Amino acid sequence: MAFQNHELMESDNRPIGVFDSGIGGITVLREVLRKFPNENFIYLGDTARLPYGSKSAATVRNYSVQNMKYLVSQDVKAIIVACNTASTQIIETEFENRPVYNVIDPGSFLASQKTENNKVAVLATRATIKAGSYTNKIKSFKPEIEVFSQACPLFVPLAEEGWTDDPITNLVAFRYLQNLKTLGVDTVVLGCTHYPLLKNSIEKVFGLYVEMVDSGEAVALQVEDDFNSAKLHRHQFANEKPKITIALTDQSEHFEALSSELLRPVSNAEIHFETVSVI
Amino acid sequence: MAFQNHELMESDNRPIGVFDSGIGGITVLREVLRKFPNENFIYLGDTARLPYGSKSAATVRNYSVQNMKYLVSQDVKAIIVACNTASTQIIETEFENRPVYNVIDPGSFLASQKTENNKVAVLATRATIKAGSYTNKIKSFKPEIEVFSQACPLFVPLAEEGWTDDPITNLVAFRYLQNLKTLGVDTVVLGCTHYPLLKNSIEKVFGLYVEMVDSGEAVALQVEDDFNSAKLHRHQFANEKPKITIALTDQSEHFEALSSELLRPVSNAEIHFETVSVI
Repeated sequence: MAFQNHELMESDNRPIGVFDSGIGGITVLREVLRKFPNENFIYLGDTARLPYGSKSAATVRNYSVQNMKYLVSQDVKAIIVACNTASTQIIETEFENRPVYNVIDPGSFLASQKTENNKVAVLATRATIKAGSYTNKIKSFKPEIEVFSQACPLFVPLAEEGWTDDPITNLVAFRYLQNLKTLGVDTVVLGCTHYPLLKNSIEKVFGLYVEMVDSGEAVALQVEDDFNSAKLHRHQFANEKPKITIALTDQSEHFEALSSELLRPVSNAEIHFETVSVI
Repeated sequence: MAFQNHELMESDNRPIGVFDSGIGGITVLREVLRKFPNENFIYLGDTARLPYGSKSAATVRNYSVQNMKYLVSQDVKAIIVACNTASTQIIETEFENRPVYNVIDPGSFLASQKTENNKVAVLATRATIKAGSYTNKIKSFKPEIEVFSQACPLFVPLAEEGWTDDPITNLVAFRYLQNLKTLGVDTVVLGCTHYPLLKNSIEKVFGLYVEMVDSGEAVALQVEDDFNSAKLHRHQFANEKPKITIALTDQSEHFEALSSELLRPVSNAEIHFETVSVI
């Protein structure tokens, strides 16, 4: 009992660090924040160097390590790689003694758990599909799963235009996804951090009997496991409002408006924006 | 007479160099090729480093100069900067004794000539609109022109998907352009080299009484002026099929298919693809 009590008392008020090349990772932050509303967060958006998708593996790794070093310099207790392209290059699970979570592993694991007919669709950018990371990872959990991949290049610009609940987006979703529907998949991985913004349109195509896997929700479950096993400690005794710092490598008003809109419904945290250099 | 005869006889079989960050500049090559079917061309697509639109001015200039040096090493007789972002940084009209043509100056000039009611619309990427180059240049030719700018961020991904004659593209065009139509513009500048691929959809919004300015056509007119003034010499006596070399800094099958499809209808030239390094 004494030990358990001690575990409950342990509190760590350092922020959780999250990074992406741009706005997409905010959907990951949103899900983690929804699950852990007491935590403080630093979100780093490397907007000066986006997009990562068209860059070489070495450059993506180099930028990602710079981003992680920046987050460590801000004394984070854990790092979430909220970017699929960066997640293909950051396979380590620890960085300078902090746990590191990528988005591909937990999303793949959750998909392998959820599917009942072993037919899983992965929706992602051309680069992520080409890298094959989701297919390999999902099959590593359950080799009998058939994975069908679909690149949806218009989804990111549609999300960035803010056309997230829009007849045009519904038509585009239908165009990309109708074949997958015919194939009878029962689980759909949203394999790009922008795609949860288009969940309504995607659900309109697949209907209610298909499970969506959102990377943010999947990462949040993994963080929860680590809180429960005391690998990480929660921020237990929050006397003040939690704080979210959104640090961008290039200023963007568009980003501020869109991220506030996304985070406000799940949190009353203070949101503070700043421009930083990570080099 | 003797002098004129001499002028007519002068022939220069060196290729014309054209560069862009990606596929868009092929629409410029197409228009120049249509007007000068005897010429040889080298098209450099810097696909390894695209897009330029989100990069700093210094980086865009640096990459553009590297591209021009590569074209000079291939012994071109002239250089066409077939990229709007690069055109904002390459303002010189000569490079290592070759004439240099950007896409902004001739497009702006043509628009200032074509408009009768002095209301011109510029359609371009967010970066080009933000740079204001078209507005400034058009007004420098004719200050009384009112210039209305509209960023159309979905046009490039729609063109790259090949959805160039498509109901979805028509809807997107209508969404972006309906306000401009209401404003009564009589001239529309396609201020991004991808946009001519969506000309049909754009025309469906504006109707037949609005003039479109295509950068490729505008550059071809400027090259024609220089041929006529003997600043440049044509390839006069072509005994063999003209040659088009398409050099990419990163391989892309998608690029090969799309560019062949665009160029075939205007030319019977031999098209040859290769991967090169420009650094």
